[in-house]
Amino acid sequence: MKAVRVFRYHEAPRIVDVPEPRIVNPHDVIVKIAGAGICRTDLHIIEGGLDEAFHPTLPHTLGHENAGWIEEVGSGVTHLAVGDPVILHPAITCGFCDACRAGNDMHCPTWGFPGVDGLDGGYAEYMRTSARSVVKLAPGTDPASLAPHADAGLTDMHAVKQIVPFTHPGSTVVVIGVGGLGHIAIQLLHALTAARVVAVATRPERAEFARRFGADEVVMTGSDGGYSAVMDLTNGIGADAVLDLVGDGDVPAQAIRMVRKGGAYVIVGYGGKAEIELLYAINRDLKVLGSQIGSYTELVELMELDRQGRIVSESQRFPLDDAVDALDEVRRGRVMGRAILVPG
Amino acid sequence: MKAVRVFRYHEAPRIVDVPEPRIVNPHDVIVKIAGAGICRTDLHIIEGGLDEAFHPTLPHTLGHENAGWIEEVGSGVTHLAVGDPVILHPAITCGFCDACRAGNDMHCPTWGFPGVDGLDGGYAEYMRTSARSVVKLAPGTDPASLAPHADAGLTDMHAVKQIVPFTHPGSTVVVIGVGGLGHIAIQLLHALTAARVVAVATRPERAEFARRFGADEVVMTGSDGGYSAVMDLTNGIGADAVLDLVGDGDVPAQAIRMVRKGGAYVIVGYGGKAEIELLYAINRDLKVLGSQIGSYTELVELMELDRQGRIVSESQRFPLDDAVDALDEVRRGRVMGRAILVPG
Amino acid sequence: MKAVRVFRYHEAPRIVDVPEPRIVNPHDVIVKIAGAGICRTDLHIIEGGLDEAFHPTLPHTLGHENAGWIEEVGSGVTHLAVGDPVILHPAITCGFCDACRAGNDMHCPTWGFPGVDGLDGGYAEYMRTSARSVVKLAPGTDPASLAPHADAGLTDMHAVKQIVPFTHPGSTVVVIGVGGLGHIAIQLLHALTAARVVAVATRPERAEFARRFGADEVVMTGSDGGYSAVMDLTNGIGADAVLDLVGDGDVPAQAIRMVRKGGAYVIVGYGGKAEIELLYAINRDLKVLGSQIGSYTELVELMELDRQGRIVSESQRFPLDDAVDALDEVRRGRVMGRAILVPG
Amino acid sequence: MKAVRVFRYHEAPRIVDVPEPRIVNPHDVIVKIAGAGICRTDLHIIEGGLDEAFHPTLPHTLGHENAGWIEEVGSGVTHLAVGDPVILHPAITCGFCDACRAGNDMHCPTWGFPGVDGLDGGYAEYMRTSARSVVKLAPGTDPASLAPHADAGLTDMHAVKQIVPFTHPGSTVVVIGVGGLGHIAIQLLHALTAARVVAVATRPERAEFARRFGADEVVMTGSDGGYSAVMDLTNGIGADAVLDLVGDGDVPAQAIRMVRKGGAYVIVGYGGKAEIELLYAINRDLKVLGSQIGSYTELVELMELDRQGRIVSESQRFPLDDAVDALDEVRRGRVMGRAILVPG
Repeated sequence: MKAVRVFRYHEAPRIVDVPEPRIVNPHDVIVKIAGAGICRTDLHIIEGGLDEAFHPTLPHTLGHENAGWIEEVGSGVTHLAVGDPVILHPAITCGFCDACRAGNDMHCPTWGFPGVDGLDGGYAEYMRTSARSVVKLAPGTDPASLAPHADAGLTDMHAVKQIVPFTHPGSTVVVIGVGGLGHIAIQLLHALTAARVVAVATRPERAEFARRFGADEVVMTGSDGGYSAVMDLTNGIGADAVLDLVGDGDVPAQAIRMVRKGGAYVIVGYGGKAEIELLYAINRDLKVLGSQIGSYTELVELMELDRQGRIVSESQRFPLDDAVDALDEVRRGRVMGRAILVPG
Repeated sequence: MKAVRVFRYHEAPRIVDVPEPRIVNPHDVIVKIAGAGICRTDLHIIEGGLDEAFHPTLPHTLGHENAGWIEEVGSGVTHLAVGDPVILHPAITCGFCDACRAGNDMHCPTWGFPGVDGLDGGYAEYMRTSARSVVKLAPGTDPASLAPHADAGLTDMHAVKQIVPFTHPGSTVVVIGVGGLGHIAIQLLHALTAARVVAVATRPERAEFARRFGADEVVMTGSDGGYSAVMDLTNGIGADAVLDLVGDGDVPAQAIRMVRKGGAYVIVGYGGKAEIELLYAINRDLKVLGSQIGSYTELVELMELDRQGRIVSESQRFPLDDAVDALDEVRRGRVMGRAILVPG
Repeated sequence: MKAVRVFRYHEAPRIVDVPEPRIVNPHDVIVKIAGAGICRTDLHIIEGGLDEAFHPTLPHTLGHENAGWIEEVGSGVTHLAVGDPVILHPAITCGFCDACRAGNDMHCPTWGFPGVDGLDGGYAEYMRTSARSVVKLAPGTDPASLAPHADAGLTDMHAVKQIVPFTHPGSTVVVIGVGGLGHIAIQLLHALTAARVVAVATRPERAEFARRFGADEVVMTGSDGGYSAVMDLTNGIGADAVLDLVGDGDVPAQAIRMVRKGGAYVIVGYGGKAEIELLYAINRDLKVLGSQIGSYTELVELMELDRQGRIVSESQRFPLDDAVDALDEVRRGRVMGRAILVPG
Repeated sequence: MKAVRVFRYHEAPRIVDVPEPRIVNPHDVIVKIAGAGICRTDLHIIEGGLDEAFHPTLPHTLGHENAGWIEEVGSGVTHLAVGDPVILHPAITCGFCDACRAGNDMHCPTWGFPGVDGLDGGYAEYMRTSARSVVKLAPGTDPASLAPHADAGLTDMHAVKQIVPFTHPGSTVVVIGVGGLGHIAIQLLHALTAARVVAVATRPERAEFARRFGADEVVMTGSDGGYSAVMDLTNGIGADAVLDLVGDGDVPAQAIRMVRKGGAYVIVGYGGKAEIELLYAINRDLKVLGSQIGSYTELVELMELDRQGRIVSESQRFPLDDAVDALDEVRRGRVMGRAILVPG
């Protein structure tokens, strides 16, 4: 089958022929890929930026936002049937450790992360994962368009869940970055909180995009990253939470200044650093919350919101054969919403 | 009356004669000081280190850890009587804003902070505060020895309350810094959680001090700030929470590395900076929690624990007249536990 | 001034002339009433049904859902000005007890409850209350139409806040009773949770009323109180929470059967009893949550949702002079939404 | 092998010879029983009292508090080895449903409950369960003495976890019933909260037993179930939470009256009913919390507390052959602490 694989860092991945995956363990599942989302993390992987964190063996197949249909199941799997439409949680977890048993499966110390840590991902025709990673979709669902929710939407969900305790009617939440993650985050904040949502955008078309998905207010980045506009909107008090989907350059420092006393700066975008003066953190009772990918349960909940029509996602499809070009479009910021690779 | 006042930064404060405070508003209260704790923040104030955060007008009287007896009450105060032994919450809050009404009085936007922000504090014979700042003690209590709880103990309480949600039976909490705050923090962690408490000490006598107040394990700072010892004690997973009472030099960076995935780094000590790589914060689901002074309710709870004998504090008394020498002893780290100034 | 007062239980209240209230304490406030909501509790009071719980001295003026304008303030009140439009929290609380300081002012052991416990309420031209009970409205607001939120809406808010932890995307909440409280509860559930809201109605026009305010599903009471319809809608699992706004007859027993394992039965309506078999409560991990009126903070939040246009309330105005007739209309269930008495 | 089986309700169970259990599914585990605790639920089962709730097929082997050593594992189990000392969570859960994935495995809709619902329990030499039900103990642990924790201790743990949010320093928790569950509950309350623990005992030797395990106060049942003594101890306010381990006769009504405004009545004992007047529940903001058996994670935490020596349990061993006599001793209330059956 065809697969898009990284052979060397700083080089474009190549589309090559590889053997189809096979069932090895009783809980293994083979999924026929309907769509695989392109994530900025894929660009970081190609540039070697995740090598230190995950030490993947090269070459490996990219793709950690996957959806499709059950193709084959291991002997121990009874609740999934061939042909079921499914979306795949990006991690493979053990099911027996304390973290897995408490529902915090993302803290499983022996987790696998196909498409990132060296296990083969979903930029391919078929992919192997575990039954524990499979979320069944409603019969008749088109899985391809949901693929980006496996990571982008799920990351938003986990971040928004952390924001919920900082909100009440009258609260303000700022979302910095209006793209693939941002437009979903705005909708999730409305679904799960009563907060007013203020989006910070860099360009007029992004501002329009944010409004289309429900931002109550949109402010432009300007010279201070939107700081003064946010302070004006909050009577000088600051926002209850600031969700940073950019995480680079001056953004973290600007974002932290926007947070009200006792409020939260929530990190999802990455690349840069946050430098925190401890006296400031204490006087402001500041909370800085790194936010990983979400749990299996959070993916189930996200799919439920999608099924109810409470969140709508924007995406653009590319044939799997055009993966290299599609990655380039994403790198140049030319895709509004999310790019999805669709096998032949 | 006598009062210890800061006249210029970088100069020792002076003991001078000032008029006694008088009732101005219906909710005002005059307290006869029994004892006033010396805090490292006093040293920071003298060095001008809090000028940017609080802009106090000089000269002003130091002292934000105060306890004593009610001397006089305003016309609107009916629940306090002359002679009642009391401890004073360090802040004066309005009682009507959203923060005050929700019990988060420390986020009151118009709060006053006697001894710190230019209002006169308790290094004196008498002090004015608000009825809202007064916690009544049990009849017959000696207020002087409790004074340090007004800030040191209360700061511990607020920090430990934030740690509670990160703990369960089997958890490990690390306390970095074994002094006036540390020995109370260890006891509060035992009172409020089922976690194992590991103290990080710099010197053998501090290690012994930590053990005396209940540390389950003590590790020495060594060359890595105790990092490898903590990792050994936690099977390489890291601590559920790390309480940093030092907050300077290499400590913040070392402390953050000790935190397990999804765990918390809680900031109480200050002076330095924490530099956080955002990719690390995300991959580790890291929470960084700045922790201010506690609320009025937390001070009530702390006094209840003291009354029940669940926390014991170590302190050393100095006459108010020796305030300058006493401040110097604290600066040199020669006081084990907490120093208390006692008027003539 | 005119006031509607209860002289004897089981007799209609009478409209009589009484002296205008005057400032007594520094924190007292006199409010010119714009509107006073009629509550079923008023009917219970007239029938003597709250005598055992509150022991009011007769005669007293009814009215615990009040809004108007500041007429006069005591010497200790600086944050309110004559003419400010305001809504009044129904309780008068002390501000110094542990409950008040923690934001749970409704648990204040010395609270007063004008219109219920013998203190004079707002079925009058003027009313005295405490500055602590006053929530300022945005300039230019018409207070009269908001009056029912002081109790009806606030009770919904407190109940919905208790329901929040039982919900997640995919949850179902059942609201039994579609009237003055019900139509607000439906909107609050949508504002604060991602749950599907199922209303149980007794008549087609009530069903239509529920749909108008956003019920996702409406089921009719039928012979089983809606039990089988709710079980069908939840695949036989039951609802995550059932909010009982009726609280009488067979309703509590039917409501409890609708609750899923680990879910909550939330009591707001009253008059009847719930009989709980302990073995059933254990096997079902059942939570039964009595829900009082809300806190001051919850009333502030409710007014914020109103200001943002997220909740809309249905009401019908009656002149204060027609209070007796209006009470009768409410008793007969002829008022859709909430009845409001408006002084001359 | 020998097994103690119920053949007909209202008849003593019989010790009979049955085939040893065998591995059927890949996740099955066979455990050699070291000890099986006797629970009052066994008496209820024999009397048919759980027939309606669980519909077991007769005959079946009793025993839902089991500990022992791994004897054999299925093909899909890699984290358990023959000879490992283990304690068994009483339920068998699926691992794939929403409840299992969220860590609320006790709400798994397809759970099995060996020893209760017709599946064979641990009053035998060997027992079959699932790998998901197995908690590994530290090497060298004697499993027999821990057996009662599988249900009695675990039920306490789940109940105490529900009590935690109702407590703070200064709180009072009442424990009604000082026996097998009570003496563990007292210790868990001290391990997990800062509350004062008041035990209600029926007899002097039970009072002494409660004090031995750490009750801060003990009151005798007397004519009012301890009501007036509890009110005296709490200045007439009532307890923050009342844990009812009896659940029969007048106890529920007496217990509810002891609960302070906003406090919780937590149900663990059963047999009787609680009749709740809704007006009372509302005015008191009363929470009634049915409390099932705990989750897998809670059993892991309980074993950790045992390993650390923070809880000590009292038990008495009986040979498996004497099961009928031992059940009778328990019925007569002659066993202080918990009875454990040990195979020959």
